[in-house]
Amino acid sequence: MTPSGIITLTTDFGVADIYVGVMKGVILSINPQARIIDLTHDIAPQDFKGAGFALAAAYSYFPAGTVHVAVIDPGVGTSRRALLIQTYSHFFVGPDNGLFSFVLHSRDVQQVIELSNPAYFLPLQSTTFHGRDVFAPVAAHLSKGVPAGRMGRPVSDPVIASVAEPRFVDQRTLQGEVIHLDRFGNIITNIHKDVLDRFAQGDNFTVTIRKKKATRLVKNYAAGRDNELFCIIGSTGLLEVSMNKKSAAEYIGAQPGDGIILQKQS
Amino acid sequence: MTPSGIITLTTDFGVADIYVGVMKGVILSINPQARIIDLTHDIAPQDFKGAGFALAAAYSYFPAGTVHVAVIDPGVGTSRRALLIQTYSHFFVGPDNGLFSFVLHSRDVQQVIELSNPAYFLPLQSTTFHGRDVFAPVAAHLSKGVPAGRMGRPVSDPVIASVAEPRFVDQRTLQGEVIHLDRFGNIITNIHKDVLDRFAQGDNFTVTIRKKKATRLVKNYAAGRDNELFCIIGSTGLLEVSMNKKSAAEYIGAQPGDGIILQKQS
Amino acid sequence: MTPSGIITLTTDFGVADIYVGVMKGVILSINPQARIIDLTHDIAPQDFKGAGFALAAAYSYFPAGTVHVAVIDPGVGTSRRALLIQTYSHFFVGPDNGLFSFVLHSRDVQQVIELSNPAYFLPLQSTTFHGRDVFAPVAAHLSKGVPAGRMGRPVSDPVIASVAEPRFVDQRTLQGEVIHLDRFGNIITNIHKDVLDRFAQGDNFTVTIRKKKATRLVKNYAAGRDNELFCIIGSTGLLEVSMNKKSAAEYIGAQPGDGIILQKQS
Repeated sequence: MTPSGIITLTTDFGVADIYVGVMKGVILSINPQARIIDLTHDIAPQDFKGAGFALAAAYSYFPAGTVHVAVIDPGVGTSRRALLIQTYSHFFVGPDNGLFSFVLHSRDVQQVIELSNPAYFLPLQSTTFHGRDVFAPVAAHLSKGVPAGRMGRPVSDPVIASVAEPRFVDQRTLQGEVIHLDRFGNIITNIHKDVLDRFAQGDNFTVTIRKKKATRLVKNYAAGRDNELFCIIGSTGLLEVSMNKKSAAEYIGAQPGDGIILQKQS
Repeated sequence: MTPSGIITLTTDFGVADIYVGVMKGVILSINPQARIIDLTHDIAPQDFKGAGFALAAAYSYFPAGTVHVAVIDPGVGTSRRALLIQTYSHFFVGPDNGLFSFVLHSRDVQQVIELSNPAYFLPLQSTTFHGRDVFAPVAAHLSKGVPAGRMGRPVSDPVIASVAEPRFVDQRTLQGEVIHLDRFGNIITNIHKDVLDRFAQGDNFTVTIRKKKATRLVKNYAAGRDNELFCIIGSTGLLEVSMNKKSAAEYIGAQPGDGIILQKQS
Repeated sequence: MTPSGIITLTTDFGVADIYVGVMKGVILSINPQARIIDLTHDIAPQDFKGAGFALAAAYSYFPAGTVHVAVIDPGVGTSRRALLIQTYSHFFVGPDNGLFSFVLHSRDVQQVIELSNPAYFLPLQSTTFHGRDVFAPVAAHLSKGVPAGRMGRPVSDPVIASVAEPRFVDQRTLQGEVIHLDRFGNIITNIHKDVLDRFAQGDNFTVTIRKKKATRLVKNYAAGRDNELFCIIGSTGLLEVSMNKKSAAEYIGAQPGDGIILQKQS
């Protein structure tokens, strides 16, 4: 795979501290031509599931050969492994803690490498910041064309976290989960439109979340009436519960992990 | 106009979600050489006036041939049009909702195009995220030199929002409005220094805002006394009400839209 | 020194306003090839010490020949000087207010220049935004290879702020200070591991801060027990007081400037 020269960064570091800037300095010291794109640094501390959701929804919009670095790493400095996953079109680099389950669940994986070759790390490695000492330099070398195989040895047992899948309770009832609240207050669920299509036609269903109901499936946000809670297929193909120019998440006090029930109408 | 290869982004997406990163992925997939600069993503949700103020104050500092993308788009997926505005030196791309009034009011406009040629969009367009599906790809193609005229058809009636102009109440009284509060708590008004010069000489005037008064016009922030509310011409040429090392906005509880009265002294 | 073409930015501007974007526009108008990296823009308003700490911890991770611009500038428009500091491997550009004390304390300084040559500024300079009018254009010209000496005249008396150094109270007692709280709630002190090594072996010491005690020195965050306050050498070599997956700063209400006492155990 020819590298695109692009490296994306996803972390729980925030942008008030220098950690992200330092990673960029390390990358540019190794590959001055690298193009570095921030995916987000506002993942909640230690929330590797949130990071996985973000990366899963975004990575395919980048050119083939892009290196995606994700550092949500509460186990830094322990025996947790450092991973490089190569799929048919992208590289993923980060700790082996379930963060990359979304891609490990897929059939695109070509190889999974444990990063063990210090030739591609910074000369000194701390026990507290492998984003700087391991993941940034590895990403920079990958973006220059160093083959993944040189970075370490293949592993067959990367950590794969269970992903909350929607569940058909009965023919008339589908149970899902809130996985993300965005800045607009859209409540994003784990129910993909393909699953929804198998469950119901059009908006022949009612969604219940935190005892509130949404009964209409609309095409765009502006179609929502004043103070109406409605359903919409969001830009990543997932069912959202939303409001027009208002935060549905605040309105009903939704949280990631909340259950959501879809019931087919008679 | 030769493109500069630079694309600026102004949105109300925030940076905690992946929406901005996805737009960048789309741009780099079309033009790997594009230089992408974030103007701001912290526009309040749906605040197209705030976005217009930001862009108006910033765009001219970029090289000629820069593409400025702005996505504050509560009407996404409805019949609202998607626009490309070409001036003598810059391109502006975004929804037709008044966002670009500041440039449409000017005489620099060469052509206004309704984006209607799907050859320059992503293959599939959602009804919820045209930043990704329409505006990012159009900007990327423009930055590569595709002529604006190929992107769609000219329109003569873009949406132009009224801009709050300062008003001379009488010879001794000028009425203006707060248009922005910045991070330092500077209260930025819509009164340009040219208007002020026509109204009064030096600091021969008193400003009243939320019943508080500012009587001195100073040259720099450090000239302010402890707890003094003063006037200053800010970096964009607009009259600001400020304090030294303290937030004037918090001190008097100012909000965008607040009225402000200037009275000439006898 | 050959410029790397990289310019880092450290400011107290935040990213909600356009100030940072405008600086980038100015830079790219002068050097379209410049690579601009945000170190952080979340320095507290006017906190030049915080900015100095950030820059000191980060700059050496960038390639030699990088230009580091820092704008924390409450004295803008007064007689405070504008500085360019050239060391053996980096350039620093910003106001002469003590911000660069960390580098001026070192022996790497080759020359300190007062920026006085308007040929390298924007044509018009405001009295309120030298980040845009002076520091950004100077950085852009430096990144293109303009020699520092042309930018102004050497000065021998740059403002150097005193840096809080740890103090040996007696053979068994070392007194330090909190200099930063990061996003994870790590409490970063001014005690470098080299100083600690001279003071005690292993974790043969107790740290007291805000009447709470930390007694163990661990290798990684995950080694912390539930609700345990522990010591760790952070990624910049400084002693931190931390907790595992929890904010130590919130837990004990720490603030920058807090005293910290280390006592050797008998």
